[in-house]
Formats: sequence, C-alpha cells, structure tokens
Amino acid sequence: MSRIDGRTPAQLRPVTLQRGWSKHAEGSVLVSFGDTRVLCNASVTEGVPRWRKGSGEGWVTAEYAMLPRATNTRGDRESVRGKIGGRTHEISRLIGRSLRAVIDYKALGENTVVLDCDVLQADGGTRTAAITGAYVALADALTWAQGRKLVKPGRKPLTGTVSAVSVGIVGQVPLLDLCYEEDVRAETDMNVVCTGDGRFVEVQGTAEAEPFAREELDALLDLAVTGCGELAALQRAALEQTAG
Amino acid sequence: MSRIDGRTPAQLRPVTLQRGWSKHAEGSVLVSFGDTRVLCNASVTEGVPRWRKGSGEGWVTAEYAMLPRATNTRGDRESVRGKIGGRTHEISRLIGRSLRAVIDYKALGENTVVLDCDVLQADGGTRTAAITGAYVALADALTWAQGRKLVKPGRKPLTGTVSAVSVGIVGQVPLLDLCYEEDVRAETDMNVVCTGDGRFVEVQGTAEAEPFAREELDALLDLAVTGCGELAALQRAALEQTAG
Amino acid sequence: MSRIDGRTPAQLRPVTLQRGWSKHAEGSVLVSFGDTRVLCNASVTEGVPRWRKGSGEGWVTAEYAMLPRATNTRGDRESVRGKIGGRTHEISRLIGRSLRAVIDYKALGENTVVLDCDVLQADGGTRTAAITGAYVALADALTWAQGRKLVKPGRKPLTGTVSAVSVGIVGQVPLLDLCYEEDVRAETDMNVVCTGDGRFVEVQGTAEAEPFAREELDALLDLAVTGCGELAALQRAALEQTAG
Amino acid sequence: MSRIDGRTPAQLRPVTLQRGWSKHAEGSVLVSFGDTRVLCNASVTEGVPRWRKGSGEGWVTAEYAMLPRATNTRGDRESVRGKIGGRTHEISRLIGRSLRAVIDYKALGENTVVLDCDVLQADGGTRTAAITGAYVALADALTWAQGRKLVKPGRKPLTGTVSAVSVGIVGQVPLLDLCYEEDVRAETDMNVVCTGDGRFVEVQGTAEAEPFAREELDALLDLAVTGCGELAALQRAALEQTAG
Amino acid sequence: MSRIDGRTPAQLRPVTLQRGWSKHAEGSVLVSFGDTRVLCNASVTEGVPRWRKGSGEGWVTAEYAMLPRATNTRGDRESVRGKIGGRTHEISRLIGRSLRAVIDYKALGENTVVLDCDVLQADGGTRTAAITGAYVALADALTWAQGRKLVKPGRKPLTGTVSAVSVGIVGQVPLLDLCYEEDVRAETDMNVVCTGDGRFVEVQGTAEAEPFAREELDALLDLAVTGCGELAALQRAALEQTAG
Amino acid sequence: MSRIDGRTPAQLRPVTLQRGWSKHAEGSVLVSFGDTRVLCNASVTEGVPRWRKGSGEGWVTAEYAMLPRATNTRGDRESVRGKIGGRTHEISRLIGRSLRAVIDYKALGENTVVLDCDVLQADGGTRTAAITGAYVALADALTWAQGRKLVKPGRKPLTGTVSAVSVGIVGQVPLLDLCYEEDVRAETDMNVVCTGDGRFVEVQGTAEAEPFAREELDALLDLAVTGCGELAALQRAALEQTAG
Repeated sequence: MSRIDGRTPAQLRPVTLQRGWSKHAEGSVLVSFGDTRVLCNASVTEGVPRWRKGSGEGWVTAEYAMLPRATNTRGDRESVRGKIGGRTHEISRLIGRSLRAVIDYKALGENTVVLDCDVLQADGGTRTAAITGAYVALADALTWAQGRKLVKPGRKPLTGTVSAVSVGIVGQVPLLDLCYEEDVRAETDMNVVCTGDGRFVEVQGTAEAEPFAREELDALLDLAVTGCGELAALQRAALEQTAG
Repeated sequence: MSRIDGRTPAQLRPVTLQRGWSKHAEGSVLVSFGDTRVLCNASVTEGVPRWRKGSGEGWVTAEYAMLPRATNTRGDRESVRGKIGGRTHEISRLIGRSLRAVIDYKALGENTVVLDCDVLQADGGTRTAAITGAYVALADALTWAQGRKLVKPGRKPLTGTVSAVSVGIVGQVPLLDLCYEEDVRAETDMNVVCTGDGRFVEVQGTAEAEPFAREELDALLDLAVTGCGELAALQRAALEQTAG
Repeated sequence: MSRIDGRTPAQLRPVTLQRGWSKHAEGSVLVSFGDTRVLCNASVTEGVPRWRKGSGEGWVTAEYAMLPRATNTRGDRESVRGKIGGRTHEISRLIGRSLRAVIDYKALGENTVVLDCDVLQADGGTRTAAITGAYVALADALTWAQGRKLVKPGRKPLTGTVSAVSVGIVGQVPLLDLCYEEDVRAETDMNVVCTGDGRFVEVQGTAEAEPFAREELDALLDLAVTGCGELAALQRAALEQTAG
Repeated sequence: MSRIDGRTPAQLRPVTLQRGWSKHAEGSVLVSFGDTRVLCNASVTEGVPRWRKGSGEGWVTAEYAMLPRATNTRGDRESVRGKIGGRTHEISRLIGRSLRAVIDYKALGENTVVLDCDVLQADGGTRTAAITGAYVALADALTWAQGRKLVKPGRKPLTGTVSAVSVGIVGQVPLLDLCYEEDVRAETDMNVVCTGDGRFVEVQGTAEAEPFAREELDALLDLAVTGCGELAALQRAALEQTAG
Repeated sequence: MSRIDGRTPAQLRPVTLQRGWSKHAEGSVLVSFGDTRVLCNASVTEGVPRWRKGSGEGWVTAEYAMLPRATNTRGDRESVRGKIGGRTHEISRLIGRSLRAVIDYKALGENTVVLDCDVLQADGGTRTAAITGAYVALADALTWAQGRKLVKPGRKPLTGTVSAVSVGIVGQVPLLDLCYEEDVRAETDMNVVCTGDGRFVEVQGTAEAEPFAREELDALLDLAVTGCGELAALQRAALEQTAG
Repeated sequence: MSRIDGRTPAQLRPVTLQRGWSKHAEGSVLVSFGDTRVLCNASVTEGVPRWRKGSGEGWVTAEYAMLPRATNTRGDRESVRGKIGGRTHEISRLIGRSLRAVIDYKALGENTVVLDCDVLQADGGTRTAAITGAYVALADALTWAQGRKLVKPGRKPLTGTVSAVSVGIVGQVPLLDLCYEEDVRAETDMNVVCTGDGRFVEVQGTAEAEPFAREELDALLDLAVTGCGELAALQRAALEQTAG
C-alpha cells in the first residue's frame, strides 16, 4: 500500500540542506523536507543574557516563525496581532532545548547563538525540519566563532549531532515523515529528536483521534530512530562539503 | 535507596481530590499531589466558539496559570507583563488536548466547557496534577449539564477517563511523581497522560542533562502507566462520593 | 428587619484568618468574610525599586486579582486579554496605600514586601477582605524578616494595624459588610479602611443609584468604624496564635 | 495664615469655563482652576455599546489623560508604553461615574456621550477640574442632541448638576482646592463630588502621611460642600451665556 | 477662481505662533494654521539615550499625537487601543528628522530635547503646522539650555531654521496650505519641509487619485518653497518678541 | 568614477523576478535587486474589510517585514517585542498605496488582495524591490482570480503597472539604486514610485546629512524615472514568461 506521494511507510521525503543561503548570518541553511522549506539562520554574539553573566558559560536559543502565506490559507502575522501564539512558543522552545542537548556551555564560553527558523513554505513537519537544519547552521556558526577566536582553540562546544523527524499512524499504518495531508489524517502524531548515536533528546507523542497502545508507540519509535539516523548522515554529508 | 521524602521509586505522593471546592463553578476540584495544590474549576456555557457554530458539536478547553507566589520565589504576574509566557501556553494546550481525548463532541452538543487550572502552591508535577483534577471537575460539570438538560438525556459526552503523572530519571533511577527537588535534579523528565484503560493520550519526554536510551524510556513508561492506573482509581473513588 | 443571610444591619459575616496557608510565602493568610475567600501572600525581597535605591527606605506594594471563576459567571483572564482592567488597577493601588499607611519605611530599611491578594471565591467585599488579610500576612512577613536580620533588631516597621470593611445603604438601611446580593442592590456603597486606633486611612463612598446626604454618610462611617474595630480584634487574635 | 498663592483656606483658585473651545465637539469646554487647564470635549454618537443594545437606555462614559508635558517633568505617553496606567484608569472611571449620577438613561435614549478630558497643564486638582468642566460640556452636548432630535422633545436627560473639588489638610489646616505644591505636602487628600443640591456623589479621602480623625474628615467635608456650591454657581453662569 | 475659504491658490491661512503657552515646558508654542491648532512642547533633559552615551553628542526626537476629538468624528485613543498607529508613527518620525536637520549634535552636547506635538484641533496640515511650531519651541528650549549652561557658551546647536507646508492639486489647480476639505478632494498631496535658505529637508508627494506628471510636481515644489519662506519670516518675527 | 560594486551612476543592480516561488500563494515572486531578496506573496480572498462591505469595490493592502537576520546584525522580532515599529508601518503603508494606484476597485469587485513582502536578505532598497516584485505577484494573483471567476470576465482590475527604485546623492554624485553601503553614506536619499507611463505615484526624499537644492532634486528625479522605466520592462518580460 503506497502513500499519497508514492513513498513507502519508512521512507523520508527528499531532503536538502543548502548551506550559506544568506550572506549575513554566521550559519545559514535552507532546509527542505519535500515541499517544506525552512530558512535556519544562526547568529553569534559575544556575551550572554543577564542571568548568565559571569558564569563562564554560553547560551543557545531559538525562535521559530511562519511567514503568513507559508500555508495554504494566509495566517495573521503575530507581529500585527501583537503577541506570539501558543504553537509558536511551543516549537521555539522545543528547537532551543533540542540544540542545547548537544552543547557544552563551558566550551562555548560566554557567547550566545540564536537560531532563527523561519518557515518559507509549509507542508508538514516544519518543526522537525527546523531542528535538522538548525543543527547544521549551528555547526557552521560555531566553526565561524572558532575562526574568530570567540571560542577558545581546542574547545569543542558541540558534543554530538541532533536531528528530528515526525512519525504518525495513518489508517492504522505507522508512517515516517508525514506530509501535510497525512498529518491532518493521522490518528497519532509524534515528533522525535535523536542524537547521532541513536539516543533520545525529546519524544512528543499525541493521540489526535484515538488513544494509542504501547505497541503502536514502540513501532513509531522504531521508525523515528531509523529516520533520524538517515538525517544524521545527510547532515554529515552537507557539513563535509565546502559551504556555498 | 529511599527518596527525599521517604517514598519508594514507584510510589505516588499522597493525592487528594476535594470536590465542590468553589460554590460558583459547575465543577470545582482542589487537587493535591503532596504539596502541589491546583484549583480546577470547570465552567459550562451554552454555545461554542464562532468557528464551530452550527456543527452540532461542543468544545472543551483549558487555561493553566500559577499564582505569583505559588513557587519558592515570586514570579511576575503574566497579566502585569501583558502577555502569557511560553510555558503557560504549552501547559494550557496540553491540558485541553488531554481532556478532549475523552470527549464525544456530538454527545456534548453545542456547549463549551472551560477548565481553569490555577496552581495555588507548586511542588513539582503541577501540569499532571491539573489534568488529573480537571478530569474530575469536568465529570462533575457534565453531570450538572445533564441535570440542566443542556446535554441530551441518554448521551454520554465522556468516553473514558484520563489522568496524568510525571516520571523521571534521577541519579540513574527511574522515579514516579517527582517533587520539585527531584525535578530540578532529573536527567530526564517525562509527562505521561493515560486513559483509564491504560492507553496513551500524550507522551512528552525531555532529556534535561543527557540524552536517554530506549531502555530508560521503556522503564519510565512502565512506571507512568502504573501510576496513572492508581490515579484513575482515586478519581473513581472521588466521583463515587457525594460532592462536598 | 433581617438581612438576606439573617444578619443584623451592624453584624459582620463570619471572618476567618488562616495563617501559614502556603509554605513558600514569608507571610500567607487565607482570609474569608463569609463566602468571600482571598489568599494573601506576602513576599519579602532585599532591595527596593530603582527610584528608591540609596534612600535607606523600604517599599510595600500590592497586586490584587480574581481567579476567572471566582465569580458566578466566568470572567476572562487579564493575562489572556493582555492587559489589566481599571477595577483591578484601582483595587491593587488601594490595598498598597492602605498597608503603607502603617509602615515606617526607615525602620523597614531597603527591603520590599509585595502583597499578592488573589480572590479564590468572591461574594462581595473582596477588596476589604484583602486588606484585612494582607495586614496579617504583612505582619508575619515582617516578623520573618526580623528573624533573618533583614530588618535591624529593635526597629519596628509596623506603626499600627489596619483593617477594612464595606458598608452601604440598601433599601434605605445602612448595612455593615455587604455580601454580593446586597452589594448589587445598594443605593450607596462605601469602603472604609481604618487603623486599629479608629482613625481613617481611606474613605471611598460612591452613590450607586441616588446621591447621598450628609446624615447617610455619617451613619455609614459609624458602622464602618465599629466593624473595623471588630476586625482589628480578630487580626490581633490570629497573630497571637502560633502560625499554621 | 495665608496660603502659598495668598488665598484663604476656604478660597477657590480663579475658575474659568470657556465654552465652545473646539469647533468639532458637540460640547467643548476649556476649564481652568488656576494654572490647571483641562480640555473637556463631549462627543455624541447614536447607538450604545453592545451590552446595552435594545434597552432603550443611553450611556455616558469618560476618558482622562495628561499630555506628556502637562507636568513639571515630562511623563511617558501611555500610547507609547502600550498601556494605560492605574491612575489614569481610576480617574477616567471616577469622571464617568460622577456624570452618570445626573443622567436619566431612559430620557437620553439609545445615545452615547463620551467625555474626553485632556489635561493640557497640570497644577493640582486635575480630576476635579475635569468633572466640573465635563459637566458643562455634557450639558452643551445634550442641548445639541435635543436640537438634532436625537433626544426626544420634552425629555430631560440631565437630572441635576455635578461639580467637584479637592480638599486636604496641610500643616494641620484644612484647605479648599489644593494647588500642586499644597497637594504634595498634604497630610490628607480628599476629592469630593457633589450635586448642585449639596448631596454627595463620590467621597474619596486618603491619608497621605498620617491617618485622619473623624473631626478632620468632617471639616474637610464642610469645606468641600461649600466649594462645590460655588462651582455649581459658576457652571450655571457659564451655561447662561451664549456659547463662544 | 477662489478657494473654499476665499484664499488665492498661493496664500497661506492665518498663522499664529504663541510662545510660552505652558508654564512647565522649556519651550512651548501653540501654533495655528487657520483652524488647525497644535501644542508643541519642548522638554530638555540632561543625558542621551543609551546607544548615544559617551559620544559627546546630543539627540532630538519628536512625538506627535491627536486628541481623540481633534477631528470631526471622535477617534479611539491610541493608549486605549494599546498601540500606536502607522500614521502617528510616520508623522512623529518626520517631525524628528526635520528638526534634526538643523541641529549640530556636537554643539548640543549630551542633552536630549523631546518635542511633543499634540493636535488640539485638526483642519488639515497638522504635520506641517507641528514642524513649524516645534522649530520655535526648540529654539526657545535651546536658549533656556544655554541660560542654564547645559549647552556650552559660544556653541550654537541650531544650524538653521526649518518650516513646513502642505501643497496639493485640487481640481487640477496647485494650491498652498490645504485645509481639511481641500485635502480630502486633492488628486495629489505633498508635504515639503524647507530650511530658511530655501533648500529641501524632506519632500513627500503622494498621488491620491491619479499619478502626477513632472510639471505638476514642479509647480507644487515652487508653491511650497514660497510658502516655507513666508513661514520662516513668521518664525523669525515670533522669536524676536519677548516670550509670553 | 566607478561605484563600490563597479556600476555606473545610472546603472541598476542585476534584477531578477522569480514567479511561482511558493506553491500556496495565488501570486508568488522572489525579487532580487543584487543581494536584496524579498519574497512577495499575494493572497486573494473573497470579501472585503467591514468598512467596505456592500460598496461593490475591492481592496488591496500590503504587509512588509524583515526576517531577524536579513541584515548584518540580528534585529529583534516584532512579534516578540509585541509591536510593529514605525519603519515597518511606514513601508507597509507605502507599498499598499503604491499598488492601489494602479487598481480599479470597481473592476476588482468585492475581493481583497494582501501582499506580504518579507525581506529574506537585505542590501539596501528593500522597499523599492518589494513594490517592484509585489506588482508582479499582484498581476499573477489577479489572473488567478479571473480564472476562478472571482473577477468578472472582461473587467480589468489593473489600470497600469508600477515599479520603484531608490536614488541618492553620495559624495555629491547622484546614483541610481543604492546598495546598503552607499545608502549609509548618502547625503540625500529618495524613493520614487512610477507608473509604466513615467508618471509619479510617490516621491519621498530625505536629507540625511545636508539639505538638498532644487537642482539636486531634479537630477535624482531624472535618474529615478529612467530606472523605473527599465524595471517596468523587466516586469513585462517576467509576466510574458510561463510562471515557474
């Protein structure tokens, strides 16, 4: 039984990681998972937020947003409404936590990296694409910081790699990397963030229609771990190329 | 090896569910998990939000908040700051989703139930206590609605029961129902929402210090399922008493 | 002619002052005037707002709020609306002024006390209950501060006691301590804040239906002074017990 | 013993009520109490707020504000800060209540009058000047509405007149109509709103330094009643002239 | 062919510049262009915004606003709506830029002047009246600052004079200084800010109905330069009188 | 004397107009003027804002924004700050006015087009690039609307074409289409919006350093008219291709 776009249940969409997309940011990656496109810009600044000053430790944080017409019908701008919605808040926090899981704050020193993940076009899985792309932008930004001696020579602020993928149960079948049409029909929806060595950074599963059983949960976790492994390989490959 | 408050790893804190706490709300439960106390008020109103009008279906939503001095150091009021923080948004959405998992919108009819979960005193696990208490307040509110004929006789808006508990790994040991001191030291922190029949509504696990392995995840899920089962029994017992 | 709840015109509702309600706050009092219940938490912090730094003087302020379902019909959260309403502002300012009337800033030293008065259940007279309860929480907080040597030994930051009560004219009869049903029918409504020695800190009288004559004003003031005296005795009695 | 500006304790500052100040508003009065100048514009619109529709009754409300440099040091604009302060809210509400005390909503019919009271220059007593001036603007606006047949012929929306004055105790002496310098030195400060027949609409007394005794309160009320009587005469005189 | 108010096409409305209008501000001018009246208050403070500290240079900025009933129908207060509209922002920025064009920041030293331009009554051309009046208030404020030795003796913070006027094409005829009725009928609308020596500080032309040709633009610029010259003479005359 | 990037004074940067960039929007153009890249999405919806209902006329509006790291140093998100800045407001209004200049509202019928112009990378001239790209997106969106019969057959909502360019004086030399480095050094900066037939829709000139003379203004206008003509040709060429 094939999927809406012809994929097998355990198959990712075509994934690209275009480094050096913007000339200004210290790390800049346009990531695409099929038609989902997210621009991930990493900005490095010396210094840390007030509550961390003098600690000798750095900070990494993220902000996620969607362009108003990234989706099929136009959404209001959060800047115009004057406040950030719950979903935006939630995803920004998830991206930040996921990246901090592979950061050695001491090695980073009192520097801050902000990851801006702006969805230019959405087709499901924007938060997991954002994490996967932001990791590459972060790696580039840290290399830049090392070149500028902001990070001390010999220190390695990155302790591992991190990637993320969505999984879900659609028509009783566990599927990897849902596109939008699958996502809206999913009975269960899960976002999984893994390190390159196959351990978990974040697991968020939600019953959309029907509560799910332990075996379903297990099947989804299996799919996700495999998918994250493939994404880790793509991240590695992208970082081995000379940036664009 | 015993815990900070003398419990065994798989032991809940003392849990109480005091029904009828407020005289105004259609359902009102003061829930406590040890020193964590959350006032859960369910408000029933005829009609539904605009986007749902004419559908014949009802709606259930939740708002979570903390009193400024619910915690050890005073936090600013979100009303004074003029906006709701990301954590508040995230938890309100989690509570709403969890309760909607056991609602039959058709049976509810075009009525809305709002669950206000206000943390009066916090000692870890406020969101899971809120879900557990809010379920009881919701059940009382739906009984009230049935008494007023807002819900048609013979219809059962509640399709099951729902409860929630936190689990985490502290010093490599998986523990059930973390108090605040355990929570801040946890390597991994997970909130699990289950239905009374042991299936999952929501699983949210986060690596706080170190990514976690599949076996650790499995151990935490085992603990959580058992804990939710005990909470379901306490909910049942509370609902069998005559409200206070 | 007896009142809706059987009281005589000059009779207070049953008043309780439960100290030590929360384990976190330096002073914590759950005050009830009949069915009106307000949680008054006093938070002590070293230091003062910027505009007062270096003055050697302390500061006391208050924030009042209602839980959304403290009332008979649910009100919107001010945090969700993104701003504080006029009534909330007005009452917060009144509570702050009332407590500052019995504070010796020099004796307090450069410390700040914030009084959070959150109405858990409303049945008329919430602002006067808040002042009466907050005074007791403030007294406990200052004792705590003295124990921690934040306040210098021998200094007495409290220069007196303060309590408050509402009075009003209902059906031409001056009544003490209006409950909600009386309040909505009152022709004139007055809130009076007195020190323990019977002097006035604040007098706020409003013609709700009909302008009031001097003799009516005088009758209301007489009632209020007597009521505040009884409340002062209850505060004294509460503070003489060992906290909760 | 004479006052800072040579007045006797019971003497008002020079008061002017300049009608027809703005060509746009239905009632427009520039009121001055000494150097305090408030522009009071009354705007009449057909229709009432949503919660009052279909009642056959009208509505009167007020908004008070200060220009940033109305005072000796520049204050931030509330529009720039993005919210209205507590003091502004409080005074707007006071002005609205005071004017509604002399309105017959039925006679007004489903029309709304908004009173904008903008302080152009402040020297104490801005809220009482605003009430006194706004009454005259309101009277003019209602005459206009009657001319346009918005108010039915023969109906009298105004049931009386209203004026206001501040009183206070400075150096133990009760004084009428405090200027700014007196106001900052006042031990007790009171704002009194009276109808033309000498009854009270609002009494707001605050101990600024020391709680005040009943005799002091009585002396202040005596002064205020006399002062309001003089202001009522000035209002009458202004309204008898042909508008400017 | 004469205009709505009898003027010739190249004729200004009667212009007055009343200095010393407010007793508090360091410079205070009530400017009127016909029925348009704007109160321009200049506030001087020592010090500069954070981003300019230590530069040895001063700063000049402006805030424009309209009273709610400055216009024919009442507008909502921006403070009540909780945000500043685009038009207000735009005009405030224009006034600030225009005045900074004649400021020598070094000569001003680390002082800040804020120009508050509040429209008390609007009849077209409020922004150009504001610039013209604000220049005079600024000149007075700088004289004051020199008197107080805030500005070093011998330094001249003002490098020239600045005035502004609106021009537009109505019924194919280029007109100077449009009143409101002309403004709403204009095919093209232009605001021009000139220095006293006839050069341009700002040119803002907008096609309201039909795109405009180069010759029309030229005709409007000619009118504006002449008008600004007349306004510069009026400013000079006002500043030669002894302030109010 | 050649420019920073080797251009002659009257030479545009390389301009591209990539149609069909996003799959969701009815018109979607990624426009670049050198390194400045703006994504212009046109969204068509049936119906008009409330104030225009029943008029039979349509509406066109625009929202401009910058991604936080579109520039060399990261800017705060306006959604996070909770309000839109003055510059954003000003540019959004300019884009909207410019496009409305070539719209026949009657022919559009009661439909609304929103132009979202999001700057992905900034290098000077973002507002003029936005107008130039938005025109093409608008043309595509109107073709789409005609295909869906939202616009009646035979009606032509577009009455002409519109493009925009910046000009400025740098080192006394008038230059066309300033890049960022030229822009910050410009003595005078002007944005000009023209129709395809060479008339003006908007002229906005600002003296950044020194007031400018009439001859300078004339030279800038000459440059701008020529530049807009070239841009109009590029727009035409882009629209003649089959969309990407």
